[in-house]
Amino acid sequence: MTAAKTPRTQPSEVRRRDLLEAAAALFLQQGFDATPVDEIVLRAGMSKGLFYHYFSSKQEILAALREQFIQQFHDRVQGALEQAPEDDWVQRLTCWIRASVQGYRDTLDMHDLVFSDHIRSNYQGERNVVTEPLHRILSEGQNAGVWSVADVDLTAWVIYQGMHGAVDNMGLETAEQWAALEDNLVTLFVSMLGAKLPHPYK
Amino acid sequence: MTAAKTPRTQPSEVRRRDLLEAAAALFLQQGFDATPVDEIVLRAGMSKGLFYHYFSSKQEILAALREQFIQQFHDRVQGALEQAPEDDWVQRLTCWIRASVQGYRDTLDMHDLVFSDHIRSNYQGERNVVTEPLHRILSEGQNAGVWSVADVDLTAWVIYQGMHGAVDNMGLETAEQWAALEDNLVTLFVSMLGAKLPHPYK
Repeated sequence: MTAAKTPRTQPSEVRRRDLLEAAAALFLQQGFDATPVDEIVLRAGMSKGLFYHYFSSKQEILAALREQFIQQFHDRVQGALEQAPEDDWVQRLTCWIRASVQGYRDTLDMHDLVFSDHIRSNYQGERNVVTEPLHRILSEGQNAGVWSVADVDLTAWVIYQGMHGAVDNMGLETAEQWAALEDNLVTLFVSMLGAKLPHPYK
Repeated sequence: MTAAKTPRTQPSEVRRRDLLEAAAALFLQQGFDATPVDEIVLRAGMSKGLFYHYFSSKQEILAALREQFIQQFHDRVQGALEQAPEDDWVQRLTCWIRASVQGYRDTLDMHDLVFSDHIRSNYQGERNVVTEPLHRILSEGQNAGVWSVADVDLTAWVIYQGMHGAVDNMGLETAEQWAALEDNLVTLFVSMLGAKLPHPYK
């Protein structure tokens, strides 16, 4: 005979998510260094002991936010790709570029928070998660004869880093500038692959 | 009447250079953290007081090494460009790509040392020094009608970051791999600009 367990007030996943949300809000508002664990648990309405049940340190909750950021970025791009034709590789590449630029545009503050120097990370592993869909588009387009590049890995890095560098360094502000960036990156990279853009492309 | 000054044993610039060389050698050999100022002055054959005449801290000598690295990288690329025809923009771009890849290839350890997290830096200013020759090639080629891109700044960032990302992430080892990287980047970027490569190109 086993005793029925007292049900906890909240499922474990919900409490963990509440902690992540509270930490993210406070870090963004006042900075990582200026936010003690006490404030995070206060905002999440939990005990400090419960915090340490989920995370061993403030660094670890930031690392979890980073993992969540990467996963959400990946899911967002993947979701956009599901709307694109399965066998139109130029269109899929275009879609990847646009969804990626929009993904960064909409999460710049969080991006800068989770990729700050406060935590070390599995750089290569994280990059692989983010670049994998791009890599797949390039490989499949190559196999379908839409383009023919000497090195698919290299081409994926150039597109990923070129896109990311542009987002980081162009100092974009207006919606028009962001939209122009999407268009210009699509033109550059489709041209780089020696493929043709359909006219009009979207 | 003025008293003749006692000549110093070494001109100031030579002593500063000796300190930079000693620090670079020790940092590369045993790491930045594991190298005390005492060891730097011992290797340079100087007093600790003289060190602090030139640099206020170990961080500052690392910052000076970084500045020197950027200047040498710039000079190397500039020197290569001086060998390229002045009005052949595809050739000049090709030359920039090859000289940059070779520059990184030959200085990887020093690059990782001076761009480590030990010092903060004027990121944007440094980038501008390195990307300025590329920017000039793209602008002048655009003015000459060799290519027509919508945004020269963006295109310079994409080429610079794409090249840098490839060098950092491709895990290149053999001379053949490095040579193939040069060729492949030239092909990708010339194609991206919608320009034609002369055949055979070098």
